[in-house]
Amino acid sequence: MSLSVAALVIISLMASGSAVAETHHFEPSQYHNTFSFAHEPVLSIKPGDRVVTKTIDARGFDADNEQVGERPNPQTGPFFVEGAEPGDVLVVRFEKIEPSRPTAWSSSVLAPYTADPAFLRHEAERKQTTETWDIDKDRGVATVASETIKPRGIEVPLRPMLGCVAVAPARKEAVATSTPGAFGGNMDYNGLVVGTTLMLPVSEPGALLFVGDGHARQGDGEVVGNALEVSMDVEFTVGLIKEQKIGWPRLETDEYIMTLGSARPLQQALQHATTELQRWLMADYGFDERGSSLLFGHALEYDIANVVDPHFTVVAKIRKDFLTRHD
Amino acid sequence: MSLSVAALVIISLMASGSAVAETHHFEPSQYHNTFSFAHEPVLSIKPGDRVVTKTIDARGFDADNEQVGERPNPQTGPFFVEGAEPGDVLVVRFEKIEPSRPTAWSSSVLAPYTADPAFLRHEAERKQTTETWDIDKDRGVATVASETIKPRGIEVPLRPMLGCVAVAPARKEAVATSTPGAFGGNMDYNGLVVGTTLMLPVSEPGALLFVGDGHARQGDGEVVGNALEVSMDVEFTVGLIKEQKIGWPRLETDEYIMTLGSARPLQQALQHATTELQRWLMADYGFDERGSSLLFGHALEYDIANVVDPHFTVVAKIRKDFLTRHD
Amino acid sequence: MSLSVAALVIISLMASGSAVAETHHFEPSQYHNTFSFAHEPVLSIKPGDRVVTKTIDARGFDADNEQVGERPNPQTGPFFVEGAEPGDVLVVRFEKIEPSRPTAWSSSVLAPYTADPAFLRHEAERKQTTETWDIDKDRGVATVASETIKPRGIEVPLRPMLGCVAVAPARKEAVATSTPGAFGGNMDYNGLVVGTTLMLPVSEPGALLFVGDGHARQGDGEVVGNALEVSMDVEFTVGLIKEQKIGWPRLETDEYIMTLGSARPLQQALQHATTELQRWLMADYGFDERGSSLLFGHALEYDIANVVDPHFTVVAKIRKDFLTRHD
Amino acid sequence: MSLSVAALVIISLMASGSAVAETHHFEPSQYHNTFSFAHEPVLSIKPGDRVVTKTIDARGFDADNEQVGERPNPQTGPFFVEGAEPGDVLVVRFEKIEPSRPTAWSSSVLAPYTADPAFLRHEAERKQTTETWDIDKDRGVATVASETIKPRGIEVPLRPMLGCVAVAPARKEAVATSTPGAFGGNMDYNGLVVGTTLMLPVSEPGALLFVGDGHARQGDGEVVGNALEVSMDVEFTVGLIKEQKIGWPRLETDEYIMTLGSARPLQQALQHATTELQRWLMADYGFDERGSSLLFGHALEYDIANVVDPHFTVVAKIRKDFLTRHD
Repeated sequence: MSLSVAALVIISLMASGSAVAETHHFEPSQYHNTFSFAHEPVLSIKPGDRVVTKTIDARGFDADNEQVGERPNPQTGPFFVEGAEPGDVLVVRFEKIEPSRPTAWSSSVLAPYTADPAFLRHEAERKQTTETWDIDKDRGVATVASETIKPRGIEVPLRPMLGCVAVAPARKEAVATSTPGAFGGNMDYNGLVVGTTLMLPVSEPGALLFVGDGHARQGDGEVVGNALEVSMDVEFTVGLIKEQKIGWPRLETDEYIMTLGSARPLQQALQHATTELQRWLMADYGFDERGSSLLFGHALEYDIANVVDPHFTVVAKIRKDFLTRHD
Repeated sequence: MSLSVAALVIISLMASGSAVAETHHFEPSQYHNTFSFAHEPVLSIKPGDRVVTKTIDARGFDADNEQVGERPNPQTGPFFVEGAEPGDVLVVRFEKIEPSRPTAWSSSVLAPYTADPAFLRHEAERKQTTETWDIDKDRGVATVASETIKPRGIEVPLRPMLGCVAVAPARKEAVATSTPGAFGGNMDYNGLVVGTTLMLPVSEPGALLFVGDGHARQGDGEVVGNALEVSMDVEFTVGLIKEQKIGWPRLETDEYIMTLGSARPLQQALQHATTELQRWLMADYGFDERGSSLLFGHALEYDIANVVDPHFTVVAKIRKDFLTRHD
Repeated sequence: MSLSVAALVIISLMASGSAVAETHHFEPSQYHNTFSFAHEPVLSIKPGDRVVTKTIDARGFDADNEQVGERPNPQTGPFFVEGAEPGDVLVVRFEKIEPSRPTAWSSSVLAPYTADPAFLRHEAERKQTTETWDIDKDRGVATVASETIKPRGIEVPLRPMLGCVAVAPARKEAVATSTPGAFGGNMDYNGLVVGTTLMLPVSEPGALLFVGDGHARQGDGEVVGNALEVSMDVEFTVGLIKEQKIGWPRLETDEYIMTLGSARPLQQALQHATTELQRWLMADYGFDERGSSLLFGHALEYDIANVVDPHFTVVAKIRKDFLTRHD
Repeated sequence: MSLSVAALVIISLMASGSAVAETHHFEPSQYHNTFSFAHEPVLSIKPGDRVVTKTIDARGFDADNEQVGERPNPQTGPFFVEGAEPGDVLVVRFEKIEPSRPTAWSSSVLAPYTADPAFLRHEAERKQTTETWDIDKDRGVATVASETIKPRGIEVPLRPMLGCVAVAPARKEAVATSTPGAFGGNMDYNGLVVGTTLMLPVSEPGALLFVGDGHARQGDGEVVGNALEVSMDVEFTVGLIKEQKIGWPRLETDEYIMTLGSARPLQQALQHATTELQRWLMADYGFDERGSSLLFGHALEYDIANVVDPHFTVVAKIRKDFLTRHD
């Protein structure tokens, strides 16, 4: 069974609300600053189960704007997924990602690697501030509160996402929650929104799923080093594909299949994403090397997820209708 | 007058068909393989004039599939724009980019820097071929002709673009037509299509405009090292903004303003594009450094134009409605 | 007291064999594949103490060529240094690094990022093998054993070094022993030989010192992905500088002071090393920014330690006689 | 005949002062700011001939400190070498490179890409100045003249070199004299000193040899963006190897053979240099791929020539005694 088909089966299984599936309401009381096999699971769940939980913001502030965790990106979890073993794929479909308080914050100047060094260096008025944004869920927008910024009242539509979704990394590594990798982590991809399905390669028994770092909205690259940082109400359903090897996180929407490569330099992140997507087409969609390369040459799309974390993240994606658009 | 406004005025001036504007029909008889001040202009045109001309494909084959130029990317031009001086901005609006023959070609394996080295290296069946695509203008699609590629009959919609638009480079450099830079050149951006307006910094009297390297369609990154390479019928109108300094090519559509940075590594291309777009917002749209950074943090978009040319090209862009979405 | 002077004082203190200093003979029985705060110390030592111990090779083979550890780079330790606290600097002077068996091994083709992708890709005869080298301590050389390699009998002088010296990383990260960083780790620098003094920033109580990955010799860059991998007899003395902040490993010999930056891309490793060395000159040697920059412009030297590990390592160094060669 | 042997033969031919060889005294009266096929040769010379000439400094100042050329790096030449054709190798041995005036200048702060962006950005006292150095040829040193720099009177030994040696580039490109490439150019390698022999791939009839950009001394990386910039008295002898294909500049001394790769990012420069050196060993010294890789793994050395020019330059080198140190 192909990975993609398997994922869809599992997703529909989740959606059908099979008899055995449960919904867990989990209120976190502690948070983690590493993605690690060493953290005690907070909850054991089965494939098909839904989890209703919360995340706090990147500096550890919760829905009441109380600090209950430490920066950076304190994580909710880990959740132990029964039956998950190294060599499997964990599937996570996000059903709710919603800001749980009326303000978000973000930085106000570009991060060091996003702009020409000479420009950053000579900019006389450079002064990093943390800016508050008012979130208006009714209107679906966020607005800068400060009156000293030009122009005043910058407004952007909400598009809530999670900066971090991870399993425990391979090789018994414990990775700071600032960092993305093959295990997921701080990918900071603005396409990781409600309705998407994420696949992660399992390296430890139980997979050990972490979530955190909600953004009410984020631009490509996360160029100020963070986004509209806010606590979130989160709901997701997990699935499991046994004995399926993937090299990097994969993401699926109604329109696209995508792969998320993380590394420095930026080009290496792109290389990982490209190769992972090509492997996918060759393994599951009937393409050989030249067929997949030809399609990539004319239909591949890239998104730049982040250029500010210890590893940068590039997304390679292809519209699903191209996968069947042939004889 | 702000650059953006100026460009719009000039564009509408072009569109209005002012009394003085002419339409030139130019049939090229020779082609150039460098962008250089040293090439004799083929035609002198005035701001507001329209040019109806042709380009040949990246290996020098014309509408009759006869070889009349040399690889790579033989250029039509240069056109001398009257009144253009170093320090001005040349404006080019594309009104027609249309394949002029029924077949295009492309390579069939990924270029060296687009994929994981270990994957490229170990792929047993690696075998570079040049593939022919049939162009069906009625249906608006191109289809792989070969029967040995899996799957057979890969089909993609047409989206014609120009890989190369350039002025003569600064510093009396003569740059191979494989290469993009501040002067434009081989940017290989799949967003450079009919309806877009390109702005280029003028470095030589008359600007010396080159066009070439038509693609019937191209994916992000141009990852096979070329695209659906084809000869084109091309029409464009030129404008001029006097004494306006820009650092990199700028592109405008109904929806977006964009900047195109070219360099290696990929990150430096991104840095150039980001800084150029920020300068634009600060100069023309009432943003200060923090305001533009904040907006970028939550609304900036990047496209990866090419990762195969001697310089890579990254596009930074922002939706125009964000530019006025504030108090 | 300046860091450098402090280090020298401590070193001479070590050398003088103060009354309280002890020599510990430690025979390892287990090995670690992460640099981590979580590993139980094998021995507690005091500043000034000397440790006589052993390391096994990068694949876990000991002096008897028995496999007793797992790849990659199984580490001896960690050693708990009494009194070491976060914010201190651990000083390690190496007094013996000597191969403990008569053969070493190395790979035989270049690693993916060291050579032009097109060359690696097209090289028909590419065939990775593990080659055995005979170590002749009397003559001080190693010789390739295989008869199928051209030319036969390649010989190189021995210059034993340690690929890995580390303290526990910051942020409770557990880092695979393939990787270098601010904490030291798998720097793979061929200048880390007997007679050098290494300084590492302490992040955990007791510092937690790891050593491993001995190389009988290694070229710049470690371009085949490993070196003359061999088990070692190792002796070192530790010191401690209280409340001294350094950002990256520093190394001192009779002739040079050096800093070791690790990151990808290569340029970022170089940037870390350069900045760390400049901070050193500005803090300890009476240079201001322009003075240190001027000296760097005309006397800085770089070594490329490795371009094959998850982070690459670049060494910035300056001859000590330049530090006093002024009015 | 192997390239290396050929070079040696030619060099000894030069040295022997064969009957036909001439010495040309050439006093330049104009200078060039591009390396280009389009410049009129100033002199026609034969293989074996010696040229005695002068270069001016990077800003165009001559031995009398009069400005007679334009920045950057105005070049003396081009010299037309009789018999040189595309596909040949031009050989240049430097016999004199000597400062021709008593002062040099250099910048005083690190260039943008050499140091951590955050350090460059936050450095309060950053203030770029051009500093004068007094050259004392008797003592063989240069000393900073300014009294405001700490410490005062920084002194470095002279080690005169040429930043630029080039032939006309391929593809009819005209390249700014700020830039190095396969044609040589602004490599800024501090090992290009008297006694070295440089080999450059010929792309145009007559090769068209340029020289310029003398440095009284330079550190690795040329990290302040320039070096001890000074006018020079220069003498060199040229040779020619017919129909020998090389990809990048090669340099030979009594001790080493070296290759100079130039590109961005830094790693790509390293890749070019590594592959060029491996090709050399495989073509001329009896090594196969594994043999040369094995030797590189344990005996390769890298120098970082420059990290400030539009392309960076890395030198791969190997001691000549390793080339024969086998059965």
